[in-house]
Amino acid sequence: MRGLTVDALNPNVLKVQYAVRGELAIRAEEYRERLETSNHGLSFNKVISSNIGNPQQAGLDQPPITFNRQVAALMEWPALAELAKDVFPADVIARAKGLQEEIGSIGAYSHSQGVPFIRKNVAKFIEERDGYPSNSNHIFLTSGASAGVTLLISLLISSPKSGVLIPIPQYPLYTATLAYYSGVGIPYHLDEEAGWATSAPDIEASIQKAVKEGIEPKALVVINPGNPTGSLLDEPTMQNVVRLCEQYNLVLLADEVYQSNLHSPQTHPFTSFKKVIRALGSPVPLVSFHSISKGVTGECGRRGGYFECTNISEDVIAMMYKMVSVVLCPALGGQVGVDCMVRPPRPGDASYPLWKAETDATHAALAQRTKTMAARLNALPGVSCVDSPGALYLYPRIRFPETAIEVARKAGKEPDALYALELLEETGICTVPGSGFGQKEGQYHYRLTCLCPGVEEYVSALERFHHGFIERYGGL
Amino acid sequence: MRGLTVDALNPNVLKVQYAVRGELAIRAEEYRERLETSNHGLSFNKVISSNIGNPQQAGLDQPPITFNRQVAALMEWPALAELAKDVFPADVIARAKGLQEEIGSIGAYSHSQGVPFIRKNVAKFIEERDGYPSNSNHIFLTSGASAGVTLLISLLISSPKSGVLIPIPQYPLYTATLAYYSGVGIPYHLDEEAGWATSAPDIEASIQKAVKEGIEPKALVVINPGNPTGSLLDEPTMQNVVRLCEQYNLVLLADEVYQSNLHSPQTHPFTSFKKVIRALGSPVPLVSFHSISKGVTGECGRRGGYFECTNISEDVIAMMYKMVSVVLCPALGGQVGVDCMVRPPRPGDASYPLWKAETDATHAALAQRTKTMAARLNALPGVSCVDSPGALYLYPRIRFPETAIEVARKAGKEPDALYALELLEETGICTVPGSGFGQKEGQYHYRLTCLCPGVEEYVSALERFHHGFIERYGGL
Repeated sequence: MRGLTVDALNPNVLKVQYAVRGELAIRAEEYRERLETSNHGLSFNKVISSNIGNPQQAGLDQPPITFNRQVAALMEWPALAELAKDVFPADVIARAKGLQEEIGSIGAYSHSQGVPFIRKNVAKFIEERDGYPSNSNHIFLTSGASAGVTLLISLLISSPKSGVLIPIPQYPLYTATLAYYSGVGIPYHLDEEAGWATSAPDIEASIQKAVKEGIEPKALVVINPGNPTGSLLDEPTMQNVVRLCEQYNLVLLADEVYQSNLHSPQTHPFTSFKKVIRALGSPVPLVSFHSISKGVTGECGRRGGYFECTNISEDVIAMMYKMVSVVLCPALGGQVGVDCMVRPPRPGDASYPLWKAETDATHAALAQRTKTMAARLNALPGVSCVDSPGALYLYPRIRFPETAIEVARKAGKEPDALYALELLEETGICTVPGSGFGQKEGQYHYRLTCLCPGVEEYVSALERFHHGFIERYGGL
Repeated sequence: MRGLTVDALNPNVLKVQYAVRGELAIRAEEYRERLETSNHGLSFNKVISSNIGNPQQAGLDQPPITFNRQVAALMEWPALAELAKDVFPADVIARAKGLQEEIGSIGAYSHSQGVPFIRKNVAKFIEERDGYPSNSNHIFLTSGASAGVTLLISLLISSPKSGVLIPIPQYPLYTATLAYYSGVGIPYHLDEEAGWATSAPDIEASIQKAVKEGIEPKALVVINPGNPTGSLLDEPTMQNVVRLCEQYNLVLLADEVYQSNLHSPQTHPFTSFKKVIRALGSPVPLVSFHSISKGVTGECGRRGGYFECTNISEDVIAMMYKMVSVVLCPALGGQVGVDCMVRPPRPGDASYPLWKAETDATHAALAQRTKTMAARLNALPGVSCVDSPGALYLYPRIRFPETAIEVARKAGKEPDALYALELLEETGICTVPGSGFGQKEGQYHYRLTCLCPGVEEYVSALERFHHGFIERYGGL
């Protein structure tokens, strides 16, 4: 027999690219293993995974929220309530008891759309956030936001001419999923000079160009706060985006997973697309995604999230339900995590003071590190970096010496991939080259997270490397 | 704007059918809600979800294993080790500590293929089971077996002419996934008269028929122990199946999620396809699936499982890795569940006596109920039922009165769907009609689980309903 070869596989699979866990991340894993041997011969003693927003990863410094984990432990082992009654706050024990009454065992499949009680709590959270009603039957709990995004893209791609507008730079889940389901990505560029702003006229120009090329635009993806940019949309821009969707009959896919990662909420607040659409009385079909992996929760490993459908008909929702039922249900641990995120302790609850202290510390540390890192990166020769008002990342732009560009091209690499590779090899810091997110021709970036054990050691290593790199390739 | 309508969706989505959570299951959910109101007007006072193998569902009687849940609680809240040190057995605390050292926080993303340490433990489990080496780099931890099956089907369908051989009756995940990814299901029938036996000559006839029709068979699915049939393959049959795969260059997809649900292991033991392939020295590419949702573990809600690749090249495995990395990683709670399944307490461990008592009780209850239910169903007029030696189900065949068949046809329903619907409405017992799994023309079945609170009440209700149904439609 011939066996199974790559060229016998689904050709779409070969086209999928996902740089966040691509070549560099694989090499970083190898280095991590080598570091455990005595003569590893590496010029660093730990790998810092700045390639992925993974707040609780070993070596990073965002601890889990105590309230969430105490509830989770009680869900696993309900008899713990008696054992822990003098240790766990009363509201934790009451919360877990309430959830147990609704869920039963977390070892059982739930409703495929997620536990009805938890979906009702999500609806209340959305209502409080936006001031408009939310219907729990239009909410789907998911295994992280990625599962929801994948489902929606796969539902909307009805032919190889179906297109989805995606911001450039973008989180590569979108291009990967489009490649997998034979859809066409229609890029629209964010404006780096204006702090990675979104421009409705630029989006419209992209729509018109795609239509001329025979593409049928079906949906528009907006990531707000941005990934990798950290930018936040203002309400007038959001209104213009909604009107565009109306005009071109587009489904709006709002990736809002960083909605609580705000570093300057006074000057750069978050507004949901749900609120804007309801305020405008717009009929635009909207699916908005949220997750427990980011924010102050940072519980990536639980795989929890949700999406809410607005202006989507019941028969389309029935199709979504059918599709999620094939894979049975999202993980219950993630669903409980969603409940904790949308129902945090309130003032007066026994858990509140600790919850407040923990979440304040996480917000403050992230805001401070982002600011410091942006300032120090901006002071480097050839580097300019928008000081992100949100999310977990910086996306600095780098001007390279001509020699570096030539050397990279000769090795068949993008120059920013060469830079990120040498950064990893010299410092153990793993980032993602801008070519993985998309960038304008001739421009180069990389994405790094602002999650790190201490900013001084981390940024100093970045600085030393950068100076050495520029010098090594003949200077700017 | 026109909004989003069903006819604008991916046409494959419209074709997907998944009866296990189809019309009946949705109606059962509605009844469950109605039962909470005072004047529900239903002729039963609880819904029994016999449509799905969900051992820990409220009202069923397979409790979680204490060892697994104590480890899980410690993973959520490591400080519990101190609090519980006089309550939790020492091996539980040591196990959780070991896992914490390897994993770190279970709130962090793991390696996309699953925690390396847990994959190594899976490899050891497979080696002990089969007596042949297993490579942890060829094992992928998954969110339940379904996620793995979906991935493999999507990888293997390289054109709309790609076919996958599936047993009839089959678990509808396979036909659903094939419809979604534009593949062709090539049915091969199991032999009900021979206890739902698998026949290599019948499979070969199906292959040849498909090839004549221009289909390219790419893979063969075997479900062993069977779902919905509960049958077990013997080794000579397995060898013949492997040789067929060699001859026709097929990837063998072995769904072995019920491998520890054996009711008569002396007469009907389980042998893995991995073992058969290694014993034959066969080059057949094999992917075998396992899960924590079934067996004595029954932890459906955690969404844990794995697949092992045998005779699959590194470049194909790299493609699988790329695809799983797009959705980041399987839920850590499920991964920890897999570790507990493959490393249960051993004789001499403090947890062993309780673990043994709990798992013995689960095995015995299931075997006893299956036997009793099969005997009583077989005593009903027009019913014949293979006494399943494995898995969680019975799949009785029913002969219907002509009137029932006519009434069903007039209502645009399959006769077995009519039967299952009336069964739900009269007794609250939710099953799945055989038309959801596939059956020979003119034959009718339904699937019900052998998970139930007490066999007497459950089977008596089935019997009363059956007699009434036959009488109502004019007798046999």
